[in-house]
Amino acid sequence: MSTLVTGIAELVTNDGTVGDGPLGLVADAAVVVEDGVVAWVGPAHAAPDADARIDVGGRAVIPGFVDSHAHLVFSGDRAAEFEARMSGERYDGGGIASTVAATRAASDETLRARLRALVTEMRAQGTTTVEVKSGYGLTVEDEARALRLAAEITPETTFLGAHVVPAEYSGRVDDYIGLVTGPMLAACAPHARWIDVFCEPASAHAFDGDAARAVLEAGRAAGLELRVHANQLSAGPGVRLAVELGAASADHCTHLTDADVDALAGGSTVATLLPGVEFSTRSPYPDARGLLAAGVTVALATDCNPGSCFTSSMAFCVALAVREMAMTPAEALWAATAGGAAALRRSDVGHLRPGARAHLAVLDAPSYRHLAYRPGVPLARTLELPATEALSRP
Amino acid sequence: MSTLVTGIAELVTNDGTVGDGPLGLVADAAVVVEDGVVAWVGPAHAAPDADARIDVGGRAVIPGFVDSHAHLVFSGDRAAEFEARMSGERYDGGGIASTVAATRAASDETLRARLRALVTEMRAQGTTTVEVKSGYGLTVEDEARALRLAAEITPETTFLGAHVVPAEYSGRVDDYIGLVTGPMLAACAPHARWIDVFCEPASAHAFDGDAARAVLEAGRAAGLELRVHANQLSAGPGVRLAVELGAASADHCTHLTDADVDALAGGSTVATLLPGVEFSTRSPYPDARGLLAAGVTVALATDCNPGSCFTSSMAFCVALAVREMAMTPAEALWAATAGGAAALRRSDVGHLRPGARAHLAVLDAPSYRHLAYRPGVPLARTLELPATEALSRP
Repeated sequence: MSTLVTGIAELVTNDGTVGDGPLGLVADAAVVVEDGVVAWVGPAHAAPDADARIDVGGRAVIPGFVDSHAHLVFSGDRAAEFEARMSGERYDGGGIASTVAATRAASDETLRARLRALVTEMRAQGTTTVEVKSGYGLTVEDEARALRLAAEITPETTFLGAHVVPAEYSGRVDDYIGLVTGPMLAACAPHARWIDVFCEPASAHAFDGDAARAVLEAGRAAGLELRVHANQLSAGPGVRLAVELGAASADHCTHLTDADVDALAGGSTVATLLPGVEFSTRSPYPDARGLLAAGVTVALATDCNPGSCFTSSMAFCVALAVREMAMTPAEALWAATAGGAAALRRSDVGHLRPGARAHLAVLDAPSYRHLAYRPGVPLARTLELPATEALSRP
Repeated sequence: MSTLVTGIAELVTNDGTVGDGPLGLVADAAVVVEDGVVAWVGPAHAAPDADARIDVGGRAVIPGFVDSHAHLVFSGDRAAEFEARMSGERYDGGGIASTVAATRAASDETLRARLRALVTEMRAQGTTTVEVKSGYGLTVEDEARALRLAAEITPETTFLGAHVVPAEYSGRVDDYIGLVTGPMLAACAPHARWIDVFCEPASAHAFDGDAARAVLEAGRAAGLELRVHANQLSAGPGVRLAVELGAASADHCTHLTDADVDALAGGSTVATLLPGVEFSTRSPYPDARGLLAAGVTVALATDCNPGSCFTSSMAFCVALAVREMAMTPAEALWAATAGGAAALRRSDVGHLRPGARAHLAVLDAPSYRHLAYRPGVPLARTLELPATEALSRP
């Protein structure tokens, strides 16, 4: 089964050998998809025949967004906490406890319904790959349950037992780390690709560098790959730890020292920026320009979660990246697609050269530039193709 | 024909006599619509029968957004100008000239198609009343054409011949004011409810206080009601002029002196804030809290236009108002609905007490708070009812 996609005013391939510039732009383009994989891209006048044809009507087509940081297995609502924060209360991660209580109390069916609703909402906005973390269970059974549910919809599952110290372990961080790196890890590792930790010495709820190192090393020993919640609330040790241990991504990077930037520039760890968090916690934004100037690979993701940022819109994150972090529209789009793929170490998504998964998003606009030029407008949607899976599975 | 709308988890009526607080909230509510008008609102258990029934599935329902400031009759694209601005260029209104050239060159059909596409896009995002300005024609024929097209889709048409001084009148502002207040006004008044002027002495392209007064007084003499682009780029005379002349609204209000706030507080002019403009021009936001503290009626609108702000999303403006101007979620929602209605002097929209037009928007969320809590997510849509017109006509 092959499908010819035509009527593409502007195609973003993210491959400079296929099209112009770093985004690999092709004007008046066509794409041929075969069995869920990109088989051909190029100018429409040179397109080969195919079994079926979809005309997108003079719109831009981009690789589907790769949202490499999301917390989608939870119950409850923290709109009231959001409202209080907007009235001046500070975010310190303490509110996570209320989501933990609601998540533990929820049935599988309740959690699954919310998870699927959010993934559907993301897909409707052009996101075709999403990472999903545990971290609102914080018991052996509840963490394993979250990961089993997450694995139903994405291969990018992340064990985040070390999200915060749960109330029942208050004052006994070492005991909790023992649980996370012992029985909890053993129960969760079969359902997870990644392990993550909220490394934040400035928060009474999160973990310092030593604890984070213990979690990450145990995870690696259990066969998991590494990612880190790093430097969100302060310039702590998270980023340098992530680089030292070869983590795929250091996420947040809101507070960076020169040494942190140097470490990222000298390593292979992607800096994943989550500007929706700074928007929704009224915090200063990360120094994206400094990271880009240093040659660091930058990704954008939503951090979709009920506390610090409940957006599911990658387009909104692109607009914030341009407005608030002075990324160019091209840099922001690359970070939200190819950057996210790098943060997940995926070579099959985030671009549209032949061989890529056929994850196409259509913009109701003639150019990718409109994602930032038209903030808040739901321009992006996933192109539904006959042979495309619901979400990417490698 | 009557329709019962049920399954409303939270109903915003904007009437404290109908429900709780300034938003007039009713939990587990129902609404009965009869011939396009709200006939009954109250708790679902007390709802009367009706001919038809729509279940919104446990979602929040709000009055449709009233977008009281939009420029939707134009051709061309200014994504490149936006991109340059995000790289550091300042916005001074000079780019309007490029839209004027493209709009003059466009056919009626081209302009109509763009206008209708934007109104459809707005409606899909929960906007049920929209004001539309001319201002990209700047000749007698092109301004009248813009207003004829606008009048096809909304009664809230605004003559903005005094948007900028067109290139062919460069250095001859008085001559252009003569044209605007003479033949152009005569040709446009039959198609317009309102007259507006870009009062901005700080811009070489716009109009000072004397010129603005001449335009507004001529418009009033021709039977038009008044609104003013005031204090966008500097603390000029616009706001005080608007209050003095009894304009319905002073729009932008980005730079206000204490005297401006006092004038607004002492008059009947609504302060319409357009935070999407500050977002898309990287400018400081208006002092909404100061206005609210002084007792000024505040409205929110998009200013949807191809130059300074190309969003069509009132929900995005609500989120910006909360994040950037410290409005509460309730204040922001009121401003985007009842506030917009006040800015258009409309008593039939912006609320849902019996007698209101049946302009309902459904949120894919349990509460209006989610509009700010979930920024960038397309939660709002217009509820399509059997007897509702495409857009409000008084």
